[in-house]
Amino acid sequence: MTTTRRIVLASRPQGVASTSNFRLETVELPALAPGQVLVRNHFLSLDPYMRSRMDAADSYATPQQVGETMIGGTVGTVAESRNAAFAVGDAVVGALGWSESGISDGTNLRKVDPALPLSVYLGTVGMPGVTAWYGLNRIIEPKAGETVVVSAASGAVGSVVGQLAKAAGCRAVGIAGGADKCRYVVDELKFDACIDYKHEDVGARLAALCPKGIDGYFENVGGSIFDAVLQKMNAHGRIALCGLIASYDTKPLPIENPRALLVKRLKLQGFIISDHLAEWPTALQALASGVASGRIRYRETVAQGLDSAPAAFLGLLKGQNFGKQIVKLS
Amino acid sequence: MTTTRRIVLASRPQGVASTSNFRLETVELPALAPGQVLVRNHFLSLDPYMRSRMDAADSYATPQQVGETMIGGTVGTVAESRNAAFAVGDAVVGALGWSESGISDGTNLRKVDPALPLSVYLGTVGMPGVTAWYGLNRIIEPKAGETVVVSAASGAVGSVVGQLAKAAGCRAVGIAGGADKCRYVVDELKFDACIDYKHEDVGARLAALCPKGIDGYFENVGGSIFDAVLQKMNAHGRIALCGLIASYDTKPLPIENPRALLVKRLKLQGFIISDHLAEWPTALQALASGVASGRIRYRETVAQGLDSAPAAFLGLLKGQNFGKQIVKLS
Repeated sequence: MTTTRRIVLASRPQGVASTSNFRLETVELPALAPGQVLVRNHFLSLDPYMRSRMDAADSYATPQQVGETMIGGTVGTVAESRNAAFAVGDAVVGALGWSESGISDGTNLRKVDPALPLSVYLGTVGMPGVTAWYGLNRIIEPKAGETVVVSAASGAVGSVVGQLAKAAGCRAVGIAGGADKCRYVVDELKFDACIDYKHEDVGARLAALCPKGIDGYFENVGGSIFDAVLQKMNAHGRIALCGLIASYDTKPLPIENPRALLVKRLKLQGFIISDHLAEWPTALQALASGVASGRIRYRETVAQGLDSAPAAFLGLLKGQNFGKQIVKLS
Repeated sequence: MTTTRRIVLASRPQGVASTSNFRLETVELPALAPGQVLVRNHFLSLDPYMRSRMDAADSYATPQQVGETMIGGTVGTVAESRNAAFAVGDAVVGALGWSESGISDGTNLRKVDPALPLSVYLGTVGMPGVTAWYGLNRIIEPKAGETVVVSAASGAVGSVVGQLAKAAGCRAVGIAGGADKCRYVVDELKFDACIDYKHEDVGARLAALCPKGIDGYFENVGGSIFDAVLQKMNAHGRIALCGLIASYDTKPLPIENPRALLVKRLKLQGFIISDHLAEWPTALQALASGVASGRIRYRETVAQGLDSAPAAFLGLLKGQNFGKQIVKLS
């Protein structure tokens, strides 16, 4: 008999999420049916979108059900297989949720090259990286010489956006929370500049750091930062709306002055990367090559053990992580 | 010596525009230089965008200068010509501003077919009609069976949007101010329904009248109507942002809950039709044919004489017009 530990959604948050919304369980896993594989997860991905799924409505998809395993991306190795496409020992990325082991019928399970550190498939060479690649290349469509701004710039998505923008010949300006993150964005990720929204006047710094205005904005946060960027956009600018983390735990935050959207003839496109599966192979290949060659750099915050996932996730919502937040399971 | 009467911008509005911001003048027109034509204007177009131009900044283009003729579209006949492309008596559409006569070097002057009533070239077969055509066909890109909502539905732009959406096989729902306008939108323009935002709960009526949600929204007004529509948009909906008249005389009105833009992966595109000159011939041909055949209907509010232009324009900003607002000059 195989058992696994998992974390389920115990209750929906009323406002700010807390550890009481989660519960650790040990459950039995059934024997494998034909076509199924048992995966032992090594790393669990924690991502802001999970907060939206915890609410009863108002999200992309069917909400996470109460009492069920918290959804989430995972990377691990195949421990047992009754599926010819997967052998014991294969490294696989999946969406098995916040659990130490899980059963998959092979759907959404993808073999990955163990030459790279496995955790990267949850970040730069995974969903967050593809999100960055798609929003930048398919929505912002940057031209060399343009200026691209990205919020949450040191995070799993933002860090890739800026590095890809630099590679495309753009000026890349990040917005992040705190001097340490900003230093990392400039010194390690090689953005042209980074604004510390916690200690600087974002509007004034944007004006100073984007002397030719802003052509593309990759938005992860919303709220007052969005308004500040909006006022500095150039005519015919493009906004990839990827996240609004500033309001996930609170009431909606308005766009105070939408007139710029009209006057500057801006395009704003909301997106979720699971709508664009056909683009994943192209994006993943480019990202894997970038990481392997060292052209794309990344940083992780690693929480130890399944028990640590809820607190790590709540910290992520507050920006306490630095780079991609993962949980190491074994 | 030729003289003309004209209306100039006397001062920029501080908040709500008033008749004191305008001044009527009589000025001499110089003799024609080679290449120039003198046009006697028959009709003057009044359009919401003019309000933005009266401000010192925050508009599409260089603002209207104080002391200069108010900008605006005109239709008239050529009275004198030193340009081989134009003969005396030709009916021409131009942008000669709020004046009874004007001189043009032929730039932006376009001969029109006098078989249609000349005023239509300022509305349905002119800039407002092309604006409707472009926003619907190039941004919303409606498919048969979809639902399209348009605000300011009885106006020069909105009336065309809904009629074109119906012709494309869509359900067309208008939003307009007052029972008379709504009745006109449904009975004469053949929209499927129209919501009276002055007397009805827009959100509740949208829910009732758009049972399959909203796929395309053509926005002319902004403010609370925008928020109400946003919450009823379907996934992958498209919003053509053409105007924000509700805030032209006031401080900006926020988008209270932008989360729908993300969650529903909406596209929002601000636009101004003068960016898309290449599309005008195609659009004008379709619109002229629609008007000539009676498939596209329109209504005008006609102010009499140049002196009436300021008050008619201020009324337009308050929605006191019914259909396209023009001024008859002679």
